Amino acid sequence: MQHETLSKIRHSLAHILLQAVKHSYPHAHPTIGPVTDNGFYYDIDFGSDIKVGADDLKKLEATMHEIIKRHLPFTVETVTADQARGMFSTNPYKLEIIESIVKTESDITVYRTGEDFVDLCEGPHVANTREIPVDGFALTHIAGAYWRGDEKNAMLTRIYGIAFSSKEELDAYTTQQEEAKKRDHRILGKQLDLFTFSPLVGSGLPIWLPRGATIRRELERFIVDTELKWGYLHVYTPDIAKLDLYKTSGHYPYYKDSMYAPIKIDDDEFMLRPMTCPHHFQVYSDSPKSYKQLPMRIAELAKLYRYEASGELSGLVRVRGFCLADAHIICAGTNQAKDEVAKALDLIEHVSDIFGLTKGNDYWYRLSLGDRNNAEKYYKNDDAWDTGEHVLREVLKEREVKFIEAQHEAAFYGPKIDVQMKDVRGKENTAFTVQYDFCMPDRFNLTYTDSEGKDVRPIVVHRSSIGAIERVMAFLIEHYAGNFPLWLSPIQITVLPIADAHKAYASTIYTTLIDADIRAELDDSKEGLGKKIRNTREMKTPYWAVIGDAEVTNGTVTLEHRTLGKIGEIQLEDLVSRLSTEIKGKQ
Amino acid sequence: MQHETLSKIRHSLAHILLQAVKHSYPHAHPTIGPVTDNGFYYDIDFGSDIKVGADDLKKLEATMHEIIKRHLPFTVETVTADQARGMFSTNPYKLEIIESIVKTESDITVYRTGEDFVDLCEGPHVANTREIPVDGFALTHIAGAYWRGDEKNAMLTRIYGIAFSSKEELDAYTTQQEEAKKRDHRILGKQLDLFTFSPLVGSGLPIWLPRGATIRRELERFIVDTELKWGYLHVYTPDIAKLDLYKTSGHYPYYKDSMYAPIKIDDDEFMLRPMTCPHHFQVYSDSPKSYKQLPMRIAELAKLYRYEASGELSGLVRVRGFCLADAHIICAGTNQAKDEVAKALDLIEHVSDIFGLTKGNDYWYRLSLGDRNNAEKYYKNDDAWDTGEHVLREVLKEREVKFIEAQHEAAFYGPKIDVQMKDVRGKENTAFTVQYDFCMPDRFNLTYTDSEGKDVRPIVVHRSSIGAIERVMAFLIEHYAGNFPLWLSPIQITVLPIADAHKAYASTIYTTLIDADIRAELDDSKEGLGKKIRNTREMKTPYWAVIGDAEVTNGTVTLEHRTLGKIGEIQLEDLVSRLSTEIKGKQ
Repeated sequence: MQHETLSKIRHSLAHILLQAVKHSYPHAHPTIGPVTDNGFYYDIDFGSDIKVGADDLKKLEATMHEIIKRHLPFTVETVTADQARGMFSTNPYKLEIIESIVKTESDITVYRTGEDFVDLCEGPHVANTREIPVDGFALTHIAGAYWRGDEKNAMLTRIYGIAFSSKEELDAYTTQQEEAKKRDHRILGKQLDLFTFSPLVGSGLPIWLPRGATIRRELERFIVDTELKWGYLHVYTPDIAKLDLYKTSGHYPYYKDSMYAPIKIDDDEFMLRPMTCPHHFQVYSDSPKSYKQLPMRIAELAKLYRYEASGELSGLVRVRGFCLADAHIICAGTNQAKDEVAKALDLIEHVSDIFGLTKGNDYWYRLSLGDRNNAEKYYKNDDAWDTGEHVLREVLKEREVKFIEAQHEAAFYGPKIDVQMKDVRGKENTAFTVQYDFCMPDRFNLTYTDSEGKDVRPIVVHRSSIGAIERVMAFLIEHYAGNFPLWLSPIQITVLPIADAHKAYASTIYTTLIDADIRAELDDSKEGLGKKIRNTREMKTPYWAVIGDAEVTNGTVTLEHRTLGKIGEIQLEDLVSRLSTEIKGKQ
Repeated sequence: MQHETLSKIRHSLAHILLQAVKHSYPHAHPTIGPVTDNGFYYDIDFGSDIKVGADDLKKLEATMHEIIKRHLPFTVETVTADQARGMFSTNPYKLEIIESIVKTESDITVYRTGEDFVDLCEGPHVANTREIPVDGFALTHIAGAYWRGDEKNAMLTRIYGIAFSSKEELDAYTTQQEEAKKRDHRILGKQLDLFTFSPLVGSGLPIWLPRGATIRRELERFIVDTELKWGYLHVYTPDIAKLDLYKTSGHYPYYKDSMYAPIKIDDDEFMLRPMTCPHHFQVYSDSPKSYKQLPMRIAELAKLYRYEASGELSGLVRVRGFCLADAHIICAGTNQAKDEVAKALDLIEHVSDIFGLTKGNDYWYRLSLGDRNNAEKYYKNDDAWDTGEHVLREVLKEREVKFIEAQHEAAFYGPKIDVQMKDVRGKENTAFTVQYDFCMPDRFNLTYTDSEGKDVRPIVVHRSSIGAIERVMAFLIEHYAGNFPLWLSPIQITVLPIADAHKAYASTIYTTLIDADIRAELDDSKEGLGKKIRNTREMKTPYWAVIGDAEVTNGTVTLEHRTLGKIGEIQLEDLVSRLSTEIKGKQ
């Protein structure tokens, strides 16, 4: 089904929901009822004496079914402002909406469903309720919402619905959401002791507990080592800098609202850095550069700070401070920049491959373009925009991948290729980005000496490889449902002696594993083996080694795996070699 | 020679310097002339028309020698305020000093050298100039200094001298200073492209260039891996936190002046964190703890921010943001805390050993004690202080090492063992510290359940292992004079083809080395071999591999080393194995 058709169905369902509400609660005042990504909602003032709860949703759904089955036509009428005021005279919210419409529009439209029901609405709607799949929707939950989103206004009741083209799609969506809930990184993060928050430290500032920190350390070392092998030069630059730096870069006016307030030190104002690029340009400019030194790929695990309203904060996905695997590639000319964009995409594909993500399926490319007519939002240099957009389009064409083009999604300093991904909830995000920048080199007066001894302006490619560590962690927790592959698992194997008599031998096994750089754990508590295995499974540890009389006698362990089950009795050197090989292979 | 005697000599030399000045510049106005760590200085107003330069120092020194050889006695006289005013009536500075003395003291003393020369002075001095070793001192340099250190006042001329008990000591000191200058981490840091500063980013905020960043990364991984093996749990906690956190810890009133101004986010005030401990207590308190989980050793590479006045900033030693290898060990009771203090010292000794530092020689212990009578500076709990100090003293006694005890050098929350070290200039610093804390567990209400199920207050051991990365880097640059051992060298080996014909083979050697995780570099420029080797030596690269006809034919390289010289022609696999073994052995 086309997106527009589905959107009409969802919008029509919002009206039908309201019609059902008015049937049971004739004095309720509706306000607005828009479409969402997966359905619709309606904000309604039921009056202070009426309490609508989750139990009432089934009844409303039943009424909606009845209305739909009556095959009522949706008809539009254009009315004058006064006619509209008359039609909605008892509803102060609709009257307020009418007054805001008449400021800019002369026509006011209302939609009728059948004869009796009318709502103030721009449309569009389905022609008749028979077009709505009666089993393709559901009312899901109720929440509070302020009128106009302003906490000074009245609190309304918001009824949410989800709606799809068929029962199958609805069920698929519901199943996905249930699965997503089980994988929710906030829930698994707590269950698996990965990270936490503290009210004394502050919202949006995650504290990585030892187990989560182990995964983060492995991710960080993996990306740094990979980038070093790929020819990047890693640096460390300060997490704070003078406001002047961001004024020079031109980030200040564009990013002002997402930057924190300055910190005054002596006579200077310092900022928590919102981005890395101007810092890396200071690295580049520390000494004169020749074309022989380019491309120069400056990389860093950079801590960045951007404002998020407290209501927007969510687990590791929306935070107030994060660590980005960032890089800036200073290129001698367009051709070198084109090569480097391609190599940056190669690196992203290499990294995605290690996490088992496939191109076209798990992620896809988007070419994000500028707007030549918006000099306020985009650095003015039409030729440079043309060249940059052409270069990026060529890179994508040469890769022979499908990609979409998105107007007005560029950075202010140039066009970019975004790597788009869906999370377990089905929500699309930009996971990684590769940007073509012809603006910053001007702003920072970056130069290199070409083969003829002339000073030339370079092009800068901004890129991420693994993204922000916090976001990739959230993504991976949900992607693996907490079952991290061996190389990332906080504990890789638990050694489980069955009885006291096996403890001494178990302890030597444990020490051997630790010495071989395997993250082992020894559970020599008094619990029975069954309980010990349940605990190990609960923490999603990939392997455990059971040790009883036979193992002590034979100098072996009995190896088990969280999904493969019992692997069998094996020699210690085989155990070490099996685990080491898998860890090294990023399995 | 006793410290007091040397101090008297230095102070007497300040007077003799002034006497020599007055001999040549009778209208000069002296102000103050105190003793320093290695000699003395005198601040003098020569008048705006007289310019005293470095050339004049030799003449002044010669006059000083003459004065000393006259064997003049130093004699003290007590005078009234009015008598003093009369004696120094032409010198506005001395008159100002007299007025500040009479506010609190009734007696004013002046010291005479022989008959003619007198200076306002508290003393003490040597009895006669014959006690001064005439060849044990030197005037070193001249600098500007504001009267009373206030830039609103007149600029004076400060003449510096160094003075020791003998010519030998003077020479030894001079040699040490010259050597220190060659090793100065700020100079080597620039020469070797290790780090830089940018006026746009701000003073005291080092930017680690790729070569310096490589050393830092190796140091960081070394200490994290070592600590993990030693049973520490590494975490990541936020670099900013709410002011409330530091109010709870009690750091706020004590550290207020060294903390930066708060950043307001919504309704909360956030601080750049000045210390890690309260963050680690949030990790501890995330879930209830049992005695079975203790000791819990929480560690982090923690970025910290403390105010330094711009005049105090110096290279990597005095900075405004630094990264501390920090840890907090939560201990069940005094005995466990004692064991953990001892283990923390073991770790410090282990780390120091890797850098070639020996106990007693390169570093020594200091027991820093509190003050039961100063409840403002030290958390009040006399019994806990007694126990803590006893525990630390016992640990040091059991190690059978010499240590000194320092009164009133403790942290506000408990006593500590400081590891003291001298830098290449001979200046003593606290390099590492292990602290015993009975205060924070109260403040943060930290508890654990003991074997009987009761809630008990733990003891916390605060400790550093390698200190702040910035400081240890500064120390190591100077310690090694830039000749970093192989495992820390930014580039470990440079491959040097002699001519174009050797380039292809050189390139395969380079690739093999890189694949074997050796930090190799290929110099296939058009320079001659001599120049290439000079460049390699200049960057203090430990090894280089020369490749000519013979090496191409034999499939070998000719290996040379920065201090061992030519090692000889060796097979590629021997090269890789030699370097890998040395790197693994932290050589």
